[in-house]
Amino acid sequence: MTADHGFVLALSGGIGGAKLALGLSRVLPPGTLMVVANTGDDFEHLGLQISPDLDTLLYTLGGIDNPETGWGRRDETWTFMGALEALGGETWFKLGDGDLATHVERTRRRRAGESLSAITDDFRHRLRISSRLLPMSDDPVRTRLLTDEGWLDFQDYFVRRRCAPSVRTIVFDGAGAARPQPDFVAALADADLRMVVICPSNPLISIDPILALEGVRDALRACRAPVVAVSPIIDGRAVKGPTAKMMAELGMPVDAGSVARHYRDILDHYIIDEADLAGVGGLDAATTVTRTLMENIADREALARVVLMAGQGV
Amino acid sequence: MTADHGFVLALSGGIGGAKLALGLSRVLPPGTLMVVANTGDDFEHLGLQISPDLDTLLYTLGGIDNPETGWGRRDETWTFMGALEALGGETWFKLGDGDLATHVERTRRRRAGESLSAITDDFRHRLRISSRLLPMSDDPVRTRLLTDEGWLDFQDYFVRRRCAPSVRTIVFDGAGAARPQPDFVAALADADLRMVVICPSNPLISIDPILALEGVRDALRACRAPVVAVSPIIDGRAVKGPTAKMMAELGMPVDAGSVARHYRDILDHYIIDEADLAGVGGLDAATTVTRTLMENIADREALARVVLMAGQGV
Repeated sequence: MTADHGFVLALSGGIGGAKLALGLSRVLPPGTLMVVANTGDDFEHLGLQISPDLDTLLYTLGGIDNPETGWGRRDETWTFMGALEALGGETWFKLGDGDLATHVERTRRRRAGESLSAITDDFRHRLRISSRLLPMSDDPVRTRLLTDEGWLDFQDYFVRRRCAPSVRTIVFDGAGAARPQPDFVAALADADLRMVVICPSNPLISIDPILALEGVRDALRACRAPVVAVSPIIDGRAVKGPTAKMMAELGMPVDAGSVARHYRDILDHYIIDEADLAGVGGLDAATTVTRTLMENIADREALARVVLMAGQGV
Repeated sequence: MTADHGFVLALSGGIGGAKLALGLSRVLPPGTLMVVANTGDDFEHLGLQISPDLDTLLYTLGGIDNPETGWGRRDETWTFMGALEALGGETWFKLGDGDLATHVERTRRRRAGESLSAITDDFRHRLRISSRLLPMSDDPVRTRLLTDEGWLDFQDYFVRRRCAPSVRTIVFDGAGAARPQPDFVAALADADLRMVVICPSNPLISIDPILALEGVRDALRACRAPVVAVSPIIDGRAVKGPTAKMMAELGMPVDAGSVARHYRDILDHYIIDEADLAGVGGLDAATTVTRTLMENIADREALARVVLMAGQGV
């Protein structure tokens, strides 16, 4: 990716994906990264339209993310939540005062008829993000889970119930009818596309919604640019979140190879952690072994360089 | 008002009215004050339904008002406004982080079908306010002003343009069709009603919208309980806000007598400041002269006691 033309497309969920997206944005020439975000976790709460993965990407790429939580903003205040609680409002989903501005302004503009794409593009410009950032679709897709406690909306499962219920089935309501964002579709067929990166996000709830959109999986299969995925599993565990627990509940071996097999029809190159060599025998994809844990900015940039090199070598 | 039954009804706008309402609530037995608030200033902003006078009353009666501004909450933070500005949102109307909770939760509940009255009553209970607090109506009434710059919505005139345009006409859109809040109407005919207090609010934009509701002025005229008004003019000036400027622009002499004449068909007793004795000759109403400036809690309680005594002596 030292070429002076061409661009890289990254598919991402929230926290883990955003870390690699930030690394990529820092080692690539400005304006040569396009990040497509999962919107299956989007929901309406308190009358506000919330897009958790887009927001995490906005804040991370904009350098205003909260380094302690991975979600939300840095230098955040919580006056709103305290006042809401005193008025008897719902407080299970934590909304910081600065974060609220994103939801209020996005909701206002959505109601005024603007697309999620247009609003996101304006926000990223205002936050001085040189990378493009797109929702996977401007149409609603809603991840729902059949659990041992019945059907749950994603945020009910993820935040309110803290991923405690056991997952039996995951569906992406609306994915069949939702049109992938047009610039995303065009990018997959663009001769200047150098590489598609599947970020180390949860394959089942962060990447699968993107792949479930009409034509996306086929386009990735047909894509001339290499598809490089980074394993979200390190030493048989997920760094954060319910990835490992969900994989086990759905009968997938909890190892890096299992994720690669999940992507097998689209995958050209797979990046795994040094700790997971044992679990990736028999893959068709080329494999690079490196340190994949991203604890700081240097880690993110280093992993991004490995990813870009892997894509060049396919 | 030392009787162990009966109640007092106060008509109020925002800041000045709320000060007297607080005084009344502190000197009357708990639960014997009903405050009816102007909602002509209500508007929708950023997709949120905002009721400035109700909120000022809620915060003042709840002891969480901002003593420096008179509006908004104490111990407020402003993270939301800063973040909104960075995203290109409208920032001419200042919404504190805690204040936002009121608007977000009220808007959510209004959209879910609850009335403004029911929500306000729940909020005042949660803020441990023993006085009843009612919007003048659950139907929309919107104050609009014809100025030398054309028609302006109230908040455009009041906040965005800082009352700079010269006012020619004031209308209360919807007042003809809006039903006065039923408990307000019932209170005016209640045998236990001891007194109606018109707070020292702007007569033209805070009290007139209430009086413009179908049947209210007639009910006040017919009311057996005395109607006591407190002059919002002190020494020929308004304590705060555009009262004096608007009166002058509409051709009213800027003095305490002018406000009394504005209420003359409903007024039984008028309370003026010591500085305004000259301007109240020839009134039909009984008049009490006292210190009306409310700089602290003791002032509010003292004025409230004068008001209650005046009402007893009518």
